[in-house]
Amino acid sequence: MANKKEIPYKIYLEEKELPTSWYNMRADMKTKPAPLIHPGTLQPLKFEDMQPIFCDELIKQELNNDDQFIPIPKEIMDFYRMYRPSPLIHAEFLEKALDTPAKIYYKFEGNNTSGSHKLNSAIAQAYYAKKQGLKGVTTETGAGQWGTALSMACAFFGLDCKVYMVKVSYEQKPFRREVMRTYGASVTPSPSMETAIGRKINEEHPGTTGSLGCAISEAVEVATSTPGYRYELGSVLNQVLLHQSVIGMETKAACDKYGIVPDIIIGCAGGGSNLGGLISPFMGEKLRGEADYRIIAVEPASCPSFTRGKFVYDFCDTGKVCPMAKMYTLGHDFIPSANHAGGLRYHGMSPVLSQLYHDGYMEAVSVEQTSVFAAAQLFARTEGILPAPESSHAIRVAIDEALKCKDKGEEKTIIFGLTGTGYFDMTAYQKYNDGEMSDYIPSDEDLEKGFASIPKVDL
Amino acid sequence: MANKKEIPYKIYLEEKELPTSWYNMRADMKTKPAPLIHPGTLQPLKFEDMQPIFCDELIKQELNNDDQFIPIPKEIMDFYRMYRPSPLIHAEFLEKALDTPAKIYYKFEGNNTSGSHKLNSAIAQAYYAKKQGLKGVTTETGAGQWGTALSMACAFFGLDCKVYMVKVSYEQKPFRREVMRTYGASVTPSPSMETAIGRKINEEHPGTTGSLGCAISEAVEVATSTPGYRYELGSVLNQVLLHQSVIGMETKAACDKYGIVPDIIIGCAGGGSNLGGLISPFMGEKLRGEADYRIIAVEPASCPSFTRGKFVYDFCDTGKVCPMAKMYTLGHDFIPSANHAGGLRYHGMSPVLSQLYHDGYMEAVSVEQTSVFAAAQLFARTEGILPAPESSHAIRVAIDEALKCKDKGEEKTIIFGLTGTGYFDMTAYQKYNDGEMSDYIPSDEDLEKGFASIPKVDL
Repeated sequence: MANKKEIPYKIYLEEKELPTSWYNMRADMKTKPAPLIHPGTLQPLKFEDMQPIFCDELIKQELNNDDQFIPIPKEIMDFYRMYRPSPLIHAEFLEKALDTPAKIYYKFEGNNTSGSHKLNSAIAQAYYAKKQGLKGVTTETGAGQWGTALSMACAFFGLDCKVYMVKVSYEQKPFRREVMRTYGASVTPSPSMETAIGRKINEEHPGTTGSLGCAISEAVEVATSTPGYRYELGSVLNQVLLHQSVIGMETKAACDKYGIVPDIIIGCAGGGSNLGGLISPFMGEKLRGEADYRIIAVEPASCPSFTRGKFVYDFCDTGKVCPMAKMYTLGHDFIPSANHAGGLRYHGMSPVLSQLYHDGYMEAVSVEQTSVFAAAQLFARTEGILPAPESSHAIRVAIDEALKCKDKGEEKTIIFGLTGTGYFDMTAYQKYNDGEMSDYIPSDEDLEKGFASIPKVDL
Repeated sequence: MANKKEIPYKIYLEEKELPTSWYNMRADMKTKPAPLIHPGTLQPLKFEDMQPIFCDELIKQELNNDDQFIPIPKEIMDFYRMYRPSPLIHAEFLEKALDTPAKIYYKFEGNNTSGSHKLNSAIAQAYYAKKQGLKGVTTETGAGQWGTALSMACAFFGLDCKVYMVKVSYEQKPFRREVMRTYGASVTPSPSMETAIGRKINEEHPGTTGSLGCAISEAVEVATSTPGYRYELGSVLNQVLLHQSVIGMETKAACDKYGIVPDIIIGCAGGGSNLGGLISPFMGEKLRGEADYRIIAVEPASCPSFTRGKFVYDFCDTGKVCPMAKMYTLGHDFIPSANHAGGLRYHGMSPVLSQLYHDGYMEAVSVEQTSVFAAAQLFARTEGILPAPESSHAIRVAIDEALKCKDKGEEKTIIFGLTGTGYFDMTAYQKYNDGEMSDYIPSDEDLEKGFASIPKVDL
């Protein structure tokens, strides 16, 4: 670690200081995450089982529990240079507003057109598809962050990109859709009449506005039935956490450069891609017994996978076309209450993070959305950046921890992940601005309904 | 100038390298810009004439034709540090796509929540209002960039901010409106029933969807009739160009650090705030005879103030409540065709830039909007950033100049200003994506109608 230098408000690493490898947490985990299993055979998925769906190199990364570091190919580094390094920002204006002795830093991933960290994995996945000589890729998107990121990545490599967008979002959120189209992607409202599963769903549920589960099913069907195409996914998978480790690697490099040692690291958790990336090198030190950090996952009270879910095998998607993963889950049929505006609505959680949480390496808290938007507003007004609702979950807990420091007179160092901006989430902000946002905590009975969908798996 | 170092893809100055003064081009102009005049008396406006409308310190800056440098107050520097320095980016991916020997750089001002360079002046104007002990400020906004910037600045200093937003935008662009409200601004659709002029207009034109001219009139009425309030404006004025010089000062510092010497500097021009800021130190050298640069203003063919306007005294606003300025103007009644989607719809132009253009220090070209959006799309796909339609005018001409270099085999260095992002402009992109955008060049007869509104001023 370097000697303590004067810390600038925003730390931008120089290009030569950027990480050149991704860090694979699994290599340092004593208990590895449980493998994905085939829902029919209940056997761990092998390379060949995944080949019809994913690119070869990405399958290797998915299955790689051994290599600590995986070099980032030059073509991906070139793209990373377009928007990376992202800054590590000292939240001095927020500290002042809170009047806290705590030091707060945030790693801001929103300064790119996709508006979030999703681009870190999208460009990697597009690259490996291109390298394999594929023609294109398919994916699903809900609100559109992942679809936008993948569209940008595909435009860069000249790959075709077919996005199945949940119909209600396609119609109500035309702006994200147009960003994807500007990057050359075809965007189809799901369920469509282009796929067998889409036609079936439209027939069975006339007028349906779609769901993420259904969009995944369509994207996977098209990928597996169209020569030269594969399916790509923006969270949950091990490969995604690997790519997202670039967030944590940069954060760690910036900390080491300026002698910043975090006491607490906080990230929001939906499928776990940002949190897993942010914490990775810190968690690595913890796993190897070299250092200790409090690591806190923050999730919405209305979708509490970690804090109230079960650590069992479940389907990764509502449509049950994907394999099963051992993870904290609310059941694949669980859908957050309709009043939920704050993102992070996935029923499950990254198997890597699930194992780490199960083994006591991290904590989890759930927060209610009105308190999340209150934190978002304070943050916007003090630090200038309008945060995504997802990111604001982490802000909420960073503020809470900083206020605890104030009570106790402790000068702790807090780092949190600011995953993105909220420019396409103004409908949720409007609800909050109008005082029309409410909270919802599912009852035990509500959760039991979701749990009932979890398959009985006897391994 | 430093020796040539290896130039990074993105140049971020260090905090200690940031400019600490604004540069006032007027000090170096042999022919000063003509003063604002009172429409009744036709006399140059004096300090006292402007006091009911503007903050005292801002009036001093407006009238200051002498001081070359004006120190940036510490409180403004603190805020600048939140989102500045903005990067000077080497457009190597665009160069590659164009296969040009030209070197293209762009100064990107969009990485802040207001989404544009407008924040540079908003924070200065809010600061001086606060310093004068005012309670709040009023302004108007069309699409919402300036209103957003001023809202952010007022939130930072705890000032009240009343924004009059053109009714059609208020209703059709609710997202920007909600960003402003999140920053605590009150946003009123204009014409409203809160002001005398608003009530009058609503009475005379029932169901009107408003205009910028009308919103200005309401904002000025409220500022001048409410104790402790003043009016603030985001472009055209001398003070705004002064604040925006921070763009050019950073650009120049980055160029000097890495031995970059531009041959051509390109900026889009609506009211002139970005262009005036970007070019200022370069223009200063040119005015002092120390260096020469080609400086190109780019405007929409459908609103061609520089290229087809007249250099005369005209009202700054459609509603004729503001003073008159000597500038290139299409007449204050000129309104661009309804099919115009690309911003930069102001009928006039900064008096400073008008004088410089008149005196031959810069060129101007006009471009049609479909070619602007084609450039925007290419830029988005190669450089990753989704540009604002306004900024894309500069991209268009940068590309055109780079292609000329290709034809001639010349390795010229081009710098252009990328004023902001297009996240809130997706309706225009959709039009382009759907092939429904058309071009419109006003006929001489169309222009004559606008010219007819120019008052006869005999000074």
